[in-house]
Amino acid sequence: MNLIIDVGNSFVKLAVFELDRILDKKIMNAENFLENFKKFIEKHETIAKGIMSSVGNLTQADLLCIKKSCDMLVLNQDTPVPFSNLYATPKSLGIDRIALVCAAVHHYKNKNVLIIDAGTCITYDFVTSEAEYFGGGISPGLYLRYKALNNYTAKLPLLSPEVPKGVVGDSTKASIHSGVVFGILNEIEGNVLRYQDKYEDLTIILTGGDSEFLSKQLKSTIFVNSNFLLEGLNSILQYNLSGQLKN
Amino acid sequence: MNLIIDVGNSFVKLAVFELDRILDKKIMNAENFLENFKKFIEKHETIAKGIMSSVGNLTQADLLCIKKSCDMLVLNQDTPVPFSNLYATPKSLGIDRIALVCAAVHHYKNKNVLIIDAGTCITYDFVTSEAEYFGGGISPGLYLRYKALNNYTAKLPLLSPEVPKGVVGDSTKASIHSGVVFGILNEIEGNVLRYQDKYEDLTIILTGGDSEFLSKQLKSTIFVNSNFLLEGLNSILQYNLSGQLKN
Repeated sequence: MNLIIDVGNSFVKLAVFELDRILDKKIMNAENFLENFKKFIEKHETIAKGIMSSVGNLTQADLLCIKKSCDMLVLNQDTPVPFSNLYATPKSLGIDRIALVCAAVHHYKNKNVLIIDAGTCITYDFVTSEAEYFGGGISPGLYLRYKALNNYTAKLPLLSPEVPKGVVGDSTKASIHSGVVFGILNEIEGNVLRYQDKYEDLTIILTGGDSEFLSKQLKSTIFVNSNFLLEGLNSILQYNLSGQLKN
Repeated sequence: MNLIIDVGNSFVKLAVFELDRILDKKIMNAENFLENFKKFIEKHETIAKGIMSSVGNLTQADLLCIKKSCDMLVLNQDTPVPFSNLYATPKSLGIDRIALVCAAVHHYKNKNVLIIDAGTCITYDFVTSEAEYFGGGISPGLYLRYKALNNYTAKLPLLSPEVPKGVVGDSTKASIHSGVVFGILNEIEGNVLRYQDKYEDLTIILTGGDSEFLSKQLKSTIFVNSNFLLEGLNSILQYNLSGQLKN
């Protein structure tokens, strides 16, 4: 069994995979990571190999504990992956985005794929049917927009995401919900059209913590998969363990 | 001559109007406000009346100096205005948004108007041809989105706004420009369509500090007017000075 660890900006996700199948998953804050991590590991004694992707801020003690837990591959920009990276600055490509592209290449062979990850940030990543990765986009995520309105202005309150009743918000709260939520929906729908204009037969995947909330409001045909990044990490681990690399 | 003062979240704008015509305008930071304000006032000795809208953070000393400079109307939610406010929470309606609606009613009598103010925040405000105001939306502005990506994540740089070369950003910087700028363009274009779906013969005004940057990229038919808020404040002052109120 494989242990998959995704350290994001807001949360840490742990998962256990048997080949391509996810058997268990746990999401936790970085603050109480060690305790939860140890509990999770104790539940799964047969873990042999692992992979970790980290874009967040775990402590050195946390990282040491992870590395000791099993034979652990720490994903970085030099890790072998099953796609051609045509990003102009591959050293600065977020490793979470690398994992998403691997998931796309693994699940949608010979397809043009746009992956939209709606988490702390919303990332857009495009990979061709020839497994060539070109890049995409990064914008603030749902919660970041609410937070920015409150933190960076004098008078706007901090709200939790809510589906707006209509485009014309008739109170400050309703105006914020309309501005933020329709803003993101328009952003996603508009970007899907921009990509569809350039690339035929586009498969679109929506993942990330806000994918469920957003997908219900979207008109485009989009596959929702909240485990896409974890599946991508698992596919990178499988790829690196396979005979292909040893030849 | 009328003195118009707009204290925003990021900048303070001063203007002098002769009836409907703007004669002078100065934009400054809140930090060195007093010195610049005094210089501006000395240049315009014939100022008789003034109006101030403040959503930002001037000091008590700044405000005192403003109030002493001339017969000054301080705009608040109770100031008489020439439109019907149907906002469910009129006490929490930003006074900058009140001023924008007044500009729309003044310049576009008997028209449905959507005002988009692209400043620190992007605000959407809708007023009908019958001068009935219903509300709109609030989302983070251009600079706030760049700032949020840098402040709220571990690894993304702070960038200055740039027109993206294409939707597929091929570096971290290009990805951020694509995500933020196309995000806002899609948001605006999408919201224009949502309003046009609901209201016929819609006149659309784009104003605010980023209106020039954004307008060049927009496909919709939009009037750009960077002085719209100042013109709105001037129209409120005229309205309050006119005989209509005294009857």
